[in-house]
Amino acid sequence: MNPARPSKEDIIQAHDRIRPFIHRTPVLTCETLDRHLSSHLFFKCENFQKAGAFKYRGATNSVQSLPPEQLKHGVATHSSGNHAQALAKAAGVKGIPAYVVMPSNSSKVKVEAVKNYGAEITFCVPTLQAREDTLKQVIAKTGATEVHPYDRLPTICGQATAAKELMEDIPGLDMIIAPVGGGGLLSGTALSAHYFSPATGVLAAEPAKAADAFESFTRKTFIPSVAPDTIADGLRTSLGNLTFPIILEHVSAIILVGEEEIIAAMRLVWERMKIIIETSSATAVAAVLKNMDMVRNKRVGIIVSGGNVDLDSLPWIIK
Amino acid sequence: MNPARPSKEDIIQAHDRIRPFIHRTPVLTCETLDRHLSSHLFFKCENFQKAGAFKYRGATNSVQSLPPEQLKHGVATHSSGNHAQALAKAAGVKGIPAYVVMPSNSSKVKVEAVKNYGAEITFCVPTLQAREDTLKQVIAKTGATEVHPYDRLPTICGQATAAKELMEDIPGLDMIIAPVGGGGLLSGTALSAHYFSPATGVLAAEPAKAADAFESFTRKTFIPSVAPDTIADGLRTSLGNLTFPIILEHVSAIILVGEEEIIAAMRLVWERMKIIIETSSATAVAAVLKNMDMVRNKRVGIIVSGGNVDLDSLPWIIK
Repeated sequence: MNPARPSKEDIIQAHDRIRPFIHRTPVLTCETLDRHLSSHLFFKCENFQKAGAFKYRGATNSVQSLPPEQLKHGVATHSSGNHAQALAKAAGVKGIPAYVVMPSNSSKVKVEAVKNYGAEITFCVPTLQAREDTLKQVIAKTGATEVHPYDRLPTICGQATAAKELMEDIPGLDMIIAPVGGGGLLSGTALSAHYFSPATGVLAAEPAKAADAFESFTRKTFIPSVAPDTIADGLRTSLGNLTFPIILEHVSAIILVGEEEIIAAMRLVWERMKIIIETSSATAVAAVLKNMDMVRNKRVGIIVSGGNVDLDSLPWIIK
Repeated sequence: MNPARPSKEDIIQAHDRIRPFIHRTPVLTCETLDRHLSSHLFFKCENFQKAGAFKYRGATNSVQSLPPEQLKHGVATHSSGNHAQALAKAAGVKGIPAYVVMPSNSSKVKVEAVKNYGAEITFCVPTLQAREDTLKQVIAKTGATEVHPYDRLPTICGQATAAKELMEDIPGLDMIIAPVGGGGLLSGTALSAHYFSPATGVLAAEPAKAADAFESFTRKTFIPSVAPDTIADGLRTSLGNLTFPIILEHVSAIILVGEEEIIAAMRLVWERMKIIIETSSATAVAAVLKNMDMVRNKRVGIIVSGGNVDLDSLPWIIK
């Protein structure tokens, strides 16, 4: 594996490696939206993926590709979101320990999910510094391998397989739109399009209230995410050292969407398509809805990144 | 067509007739539930059907099988629920008028949906008597053909095609469970199993708070639904003259479930399967969840009847 960038062969191998463990998720269409937009939308439903999000692909590839001497010490990460669940489950499937550092203010639902997958949780103060320090301590004690949620080659290779499957199932896509947070999904999607369907453009969707990827992309220099205040909790992170250069080279545009647009898109998909998608996924849908000219008469893939939602607190219901 | 009961050939013809107009909905599975129940559950996802429910099958069969001299005068019904939307859409596809009598307290969402499908709505006082009287007036004025939501042979034949598809896609089912309100879906399901897979038993699920079908079935005599007080708004109706005898002959049991069980099942499916199902569908899932012994090591089909939910008011959120 090239130290800085997965090759086509790396992604093919990752796909072969994880295929027995993941769902090949379905691709859905929606007549109503197609008619409304005069477009052909293809929704790659990673909300139906195991552990409820595309993250399971990267986590599984990371776990399944560890050498035996590292396997026995397990894997570790800090995460309050989908990556924690994905890594916990992937480790459970492999029968190795998973150590997850979670901020003390993580939602009960997420803590329970991670616990149920069999991971050992260490709580810490909810700051990035505390999370990183605590993770270091856990790793020093256990010898576990850190599996970063996005800035890691096996992670990127794993996430790349979602778009690979989409392009295999739906040939001739004009473009694919994926949400961008840390850039694991987006960089993987961009590489897959580059290798497997070069005529397919890759675009990203990002909340305007967490526009660090947009800023970094536009200024061609890394800008960290500072105090992102978006409902799309999966998209608050900064780009990584590995993901940013790939995105810079292979992504054609990053589209910003507002909070209300994200919520409206989420609700529209729930109502019309009868599937549960989370705010990160809705960000990609919102980018399509607000750019009708861009998608008119086009075949457009949308990566529905996940479906993990706190059903007790929906953004359109004021309690 | 036998005046009292659809034949095997009737159902096959209905399926051929509606196939170009309906979705062949997918059959989903859920590892978590299968593991929990030591069972194999197959969810026939009519929540993904056009207009959001199985009702579109019966409505389409009714509209598409009308003779030309009746077609031009259109179709009419009274309904505040999924049948109204289904008939409005089916008529719109055929290019004929649809007249829908709706009680004045119908939810805005449903009124809008029926309007958007192009139907002409007549509002009336929210009593069964007023609905029937108003419908008679509308029919006298327009010459439209009444399409009953369940007690009509073409309707039953149309609803029967959901189970037919399920058994074609998943051979060797031990049983199929469907919710029961007026009995259109249930009688159709029972006939399809009888004709196409006689070894497959058919069971029904009904809210304990609207137990008229259970009472009728047990006492073998028609008991009307009086003041049903269940959250499963699609299951409040009484059985019909046509549906009841079929159910009596071909259904093996009716399982009652409580309101809390319906809500818990609905939430469980949203959370684990990431699909939106309505309370009627959840009633069937609840019947499975509370009867683990019955489904253990069995292949069980569940008719997910629909997915039309008011997202502003979810049963587990107290505003």
